[in-house]
Amino acid sequence: MTDGTGGDANGGVADDAVADAGDDGEPDVETLIMEATYRALRTHGYADLSVAHIAEEFEKSKSLLYYHYDSKDDLLAGFLEFAGDRFLAMLAEAERDADDPVGTLRALVDIYLAAELDEEMSEAQRAIIDLRAQAVSEPRFREEFTRIDRSIRERLVSAVADGVDAGVFPLDVDPETAGSSVLSMLTGAMVQRHTAADDAVTPVRSAVHGYLDDLAVEDPEGDDGA
Amino acid sequence: MTDGTGGDANGGVADDAVADAGDDGEPDVETLIMEATYRALRTHGYADLSVAHIAEEFEKSKSLLYYHYDSKDDLLAGFLEFAGDRFLAMLAEAERDADDPVGTLRALVDIYLAAELDEEMSEAQRAIIDLRAQAVSEPRFREEFTRIDRSIRERLVSAVADGVDAGVFPLDVDPETAGSSVLSMLTGAMVQRHTAADDAVTPVRSAVHGYLDDLAVEDPEGDDGA
Repeated sequence: MTDGTGGDANGGVADDAVADAGDDGEPDVETLIMEATYRALRTHGYADLSVAHIAEEFEKSKSLLYYHYDSKDDLLAGFLEFAGDRFLAMLAEAERDADDPVGTLRALVDIYLAAELDEEMSEAQRAIIDLRAQAVSEPRFREEFTRIDRSIRERLVSAVADGVDAGVFPLDVDPETAGSSVLSMLTGAMVQRHTAADDAVTPVRSAVHGYLDDLAVEDPEGDDGA
Repeated sequence: MTDGTGGDANGGVADDAVADAGDDGEPDVETLIMEATYRALRTHGYADLSVAHIAEEFEKSKSLLYYHYDSKDDLLAGFLEFAGDRFLAMLAEAERDADDPVGTLRALVDIYLAAELDEEMSEAQRAIIDLRAQAVSEPRFREEFTRIDRSIRERLVSAVADGVDAGVFPLDVDPETAGSSVLSMLTGAMVQRHTAADDAVTPVRSAVHGYLDDLAVEDPEGDDGA
């Protein structure tokens, strides 16, 4: 997952939802509704989506869906929370697997900007971009993107701060500024990847890795550098 | 415009359209249609927009509009070309006004990430984000964003290359990588600004300015630095 080729990239949000199984091995109703929402969103896109489309994808009692959710924006706000939790859990796992602050930063970059995205992951990112644009005018979506961005920014900032504390990064690196910049770069390159033809991802991935290499020029243990 | 507070920022796209007046001082029909499209887009957003909404905003002959354009995506693809040309002209002007490569880069950054956006500019950026998300699935929109991104990236890359040639930036700076990274950072921070609550713009602007300051540590003329 940290080599830049991981297919398990940003936004593998709902197809694993069956993992949320209850004690009886069956996924709970909310999970099934979120999966149906995601399938309908991928098929129709935000602009053409209706609650009826989501109901068509929901194989259990449709009245249950209408009972719990009033509108497509209700369903999509729920979906964003669900998808955001999964994405943040994926980042937390990458963080646990990384050996050190630079490894953590590299892993987060590679999750966002995997060199190869399989079709499923690519679809997930496209769906998220569609909803992100709606956050301009829908406060519940904005709230979810605020939460997701904030959590990712905190991870990036804290990895940079750990690197400064460990002497891997110079003392004059400001973790807030560096973490925010990396997050904006990742957000921008991901949006560009799916909305324009030129390759924005390769140079940005290489720039961030190069930036980390340049910062971490000296190994604090005095070895030959990593 | 280069002080980070310029209100004349990214996406001041259509309200000045009257400047495209013909010899008789009247704006041409296409310009009037594009202005109507922009007003309708701001009011309804992409998802709720119809050709009828655009026709309502178009004060001249509605049949003319229906004669020239088949669908809202036709109208919006035309609008993106129109808005893109205006935005690129704004960047070209900033470039002409700048004294040197670093000044050019600073000006482009400040146009994207002005510290204060007036309501008109803010609306223009929000409309562009809405259409950008549609470029995921609409090839004509994708084509326009490819053209716009490419042109801005070329400006950034060429400013960095000029800086390397002039000895302002070190020889080992790769203009392609640096220009692409700055463009992704600007794109991401602009999207975050309008779709999440935390301030993504201030740290990114400060990071890019700081990056330029760090790169351009020595004045090639041997003065005290700029």
